[in-house]
Amino acid sequence: MVCSRAAVFSKGGIKIRKVTLKNIIKRQEVASILGDIAPVDELVITDPGGKALIGNNNSGKPLPGCPVKLGEEVIGWVMGGEKAETLAKLLSYLAVQELEKRSLARETLEKYKEISVIYDITEKLAASLDPKQVSQLIVGEAKRLIQADNISVMVIDEDTGLYSILAASGTEYHPKIGFQPGKGIAGSIIASGKGEIVNDVISDPRYIRGTIKISSMMCAPLKIKDRVIGAINVSSAQPLNYTAEDLKILSALALQSAAAIENARLYDRLKDTFLTAVYTLAETIEKRDPYTGGHTKRVMQYSLAIGKELGLADGDMERLRLAAILHDVGKIGIRDNILLKSSKLTLEEFSLIKMHTIYGQQVLKHIKYFKDIIPGVMYHHERFDGKGYPEGLRGEEIDIIARIIAVADSYDAMTTDRPYRKGLCHEAAVEELKRCSGSQWDSDVVEAFLRIDVSQTLGGGKLYG
Amino acid sequence: MVCSRAAVFSKGGIKIRKVTLKNIIKRQEVASILGDIAPVDELVITDPGGKALIGNNNSGKPLPGCPVKLGEEVIGWVMGGEKAETLAKLLSYLAVQELEKRSLARETLEKYKEISVIYDITEKLAASLDPKQVSQLIVGEAKRLIQADNISVMVIDEDTGLYSILAASGTEYHPKIGFQPGKGIAGSIIASGKGEIVNDVISDPRYIRGTIKISSMMCAPLKIKDRVIGAINVSSAQPLNYTAEDLKILSALALQSAAAIENARLYDRLKDTFLTAVYTLAETIEKRDPYTGGHTKRVMQYSLAIGKELGLADGDMERLRLAAILHDVGKIGIRDNILLKSSKLTLEEFSLIKMHTIYGQQVLKHIKYFKDIIPGVMYHHERFDGKGYPEGLRGEEIDIIARIIAVADSYDAMTTDRPYRKGLCHEAAVEELKRCSGSQWDSDVVEAFLRIDVSQTLGGGKLYG
Ligand SMILES: [Fe+2]
Ligand SMILES: [Fe+2]
Repeated sequence: MVCSRAAVFSKGGIKIRKVTLKNIIKRQEVASILGDIAPVDELVITDPGGKALIGNNNSGKPLPGCPVKLGEEVIGWVMGGEKAETLAKLLSYLAVQELEKRSLARETLEKYKEISVIYDITEKLAASLDPKQVSQLIVGEAKRLIQADNISVMVIDEDTGLYSILAASGTEYHPKIGFQPGKGIAGSIIASGKGEIVNDVISDPRYIRGTIKISSMMCAPLKIKDRVIGAINVSSAQPLNYTAEDLKILSALALQSAAAIENARLYDRLKDTFLTAVYTLAETIEKRDPYTGGHTKRVMQYSLAIGKELGLADGDMERLRLAAILHDVGKIGIRDNILLKSSKLTLEEFSLIKMHTIYGQQVLKHIKYFKDIIPGVMYHHERFDGKGYPEGLRGEEIDIIARIIAVADSYDAMTTDRPYRKGLCHEAAVEELKRCSGSQWDSDVVEAFLRIDVSQTLGGGKLYG
Repeated sequence: MVCSRAAVFSKGGIKIRKVTLKNIIKRQEVASILGDIAPVDELVITDPGGKALIGNNNSGKPLPGCPVKLGEEVIGWVMGGEKAETLAKLLSYLAVQELEKRSLARETLEKYKEISVIYDITEKLAASLDPKQVSQLIVGEAKRLIQADNISVMVIDEDTGLYSILAASGTEYHPKIGFQPGKGIAGSIIASGKGEIVNDVISDPRYIRGTIKISSMMCAPLKIKDRVIGAINVSSAQPLNYTAEDLKILSALALQSAAAIENARLYDRLKDTFLTAVYTLAETIEKRDPYTGGHTKRVMQYSLAIGKELGLADGDMERLRLAAILHDVGKIGIRDNILLKSSKLTLEEFSLIKMHTIYGQQVLKHIKYFKDIIPGVMYHHERFDGKGYPEGLRGEEIDIIARIIAVADSYDAMTTDRPYRKGLCHEAAVEELKRCSGSQWDSDVVEAFLRIDVSQTLGGGKLYG
């Protein structure tokens, strides 16, 4: 059931057209040869039902004559005196030639279509390393190519063996994560590693009735060499007759998709690891000051909530996340006697504390990837009115991510207990933010912060995505 | 010039076989039909040169008769009395049918071959994220498919615009990195983004004479959507006639390869970034103790040299690298007054210092990816004879990477100046290693260390690869 709008060569159609006698003899060369062999006035050629194609058959019924056969099938009759048998033989031969040509033409078209599908997929999947995006592209492609009510891309977690739906379309599947491998038809197909068509699902002994109706389905495993990493499932509520060609297209899609999904998963995992490692090390550095417990995480969470509220682009959100995690990394350069001092700092001591913005920049400048987050780290103590440190930048001279971290950092500092003072309650801290909105802090950022639900923002462990 | 051993369907050959009259009339059905139409004793059919195929031509020369034509070409002659013309017409028609069939068959085979090439590449490239390995696979595949003396996979650095050869085979290219984009033929093809065949390189106005002889070449750009990221080049010292079909195969290879190369490059870059970030943060933590400047890097370099000497597997080398970088990360938990003390430590103070192995484990256990390196970090102060800390493990109970780091760490500590003592010279440190080989340190590891050239080991900035 290849969708007609998907059939790139649908004009010719991939179904093989029936070879008829009418089509063969309507060719000028053939008609002329036939006329040369048998006298025109004697020659009558009819279709299998007796309808005259050449000459007249006034009886309206099949006449006694020689059959033109294509394999076992009679495709017409020839009445032409003594040459009738020869003509029938010739026409049978031409019919076989025609059938062979059409089979080859169909095969060529099928291969063209397969190639076009492959190139299309390759181009679409090229260089995307986001598993969700890759899977959505695959679902979209399957939808375009195959008639189905439900389509899903399912992957297997290597560690747990659990299945997840990465992307889906239709009524059956709502993206789910971490469910047990199915014991039903799909489960058995995945276990076997071989794609399969099940046109009559209800009668299949492996079928386990679910919540929704499926009548016909196909499943193609996603394989990397011999390792099954998941599957593409398509199914239909109404009975369909999925063909071997449909499965071939689905399998081509699966074959081209498997590596894209696996690469995206590996990239994603590495990215997650990277962020977790940076976060853990940043937190470790933060933990030297026991009064700041959880500060890093809260500043990250407030900052991301503000960024989202302000509609930051994906790239800026990434910078914001990392800069927030690393904003106080420079404190590593501050000695214990100052960093951990439980009484109020002298002006000179405070000027040493201020150095953590510069130290942060000095640490990060060695990492090319972190170049873009340096402004966020270095300028998180700048003030909107230019009275901050280390450079006294003002207004939009200060990178937006630094302006956001400034608010997140200040709010968290105000609401946390310190050795020399008790933390403010939420309301008092908000009052302070409002009071200095436009002077210490960017008023747009303060307003965005005031729109978020602070208690909702905290919690949740995922650093990424 | 598709190599014969590569032609999956070489049995049939992809070259179209010439349609001859002999082949047409040797079919039983055709012979029988011919005999029915013309009296056998009158019928003579010859090839274009007059050689009889049916009947006799005792004259040995072309007889006057009707030509059998395929397009403009005469493929034979028919002499058969009054039916000669009809037969010639019939045979001409059958020849056209045959030619059409063969064209379709050739097209089908070409498409089968293209698909087989694509699937082959897809399978081979699946889920490799190492740019060198991916490129080598591509070169191997090109070698298998296309006749060429030189093959290379070239990529363009996005930041610098410089070209690098990632993998190559043949005399022309020795892997090189960071050279200026060529102005010659390949350069112009890459700039155009369109694959090209240049069979007569010498006469091409774009040709710039190089050090080696090239007569014919093809170049297919590696493209991600519309962005050219590199190219596959093949060339031959002797003149060849590369065909459109060859370029098609090379382009299919390029199309399937581009995403694999790009993904591998992105993964590689992220991995590099990850390691650089971890390294930088570890170094930052180390820098709290100014007397250990460069310690982290040296311990990593000594450790990797020992690991290589011992023939560690790739996975263990990776663990070793990370564990060596992070071996003293737990020092973050040690207060300045102990960590930075310039006089000799008391026993109690030393017991606090010892805690850095446990603190290291506590930091790393939050990072799943670092699970396997914890033994390297936690046990780098264990002794082979069981008298070390924190657990008093002995012999092979101690992870090999911890035994390696122990030697690397000790050698570097011995040869570095400390506030309370001057560092030993290389020879004295080696004496000490030998003296305690088998008691403090694993003698195999010490021996491996003694085989490496310490001064050669230091230097070089790449953390990865
Ligand atoms: Fe700060
Ligand atoms: Fe240590």
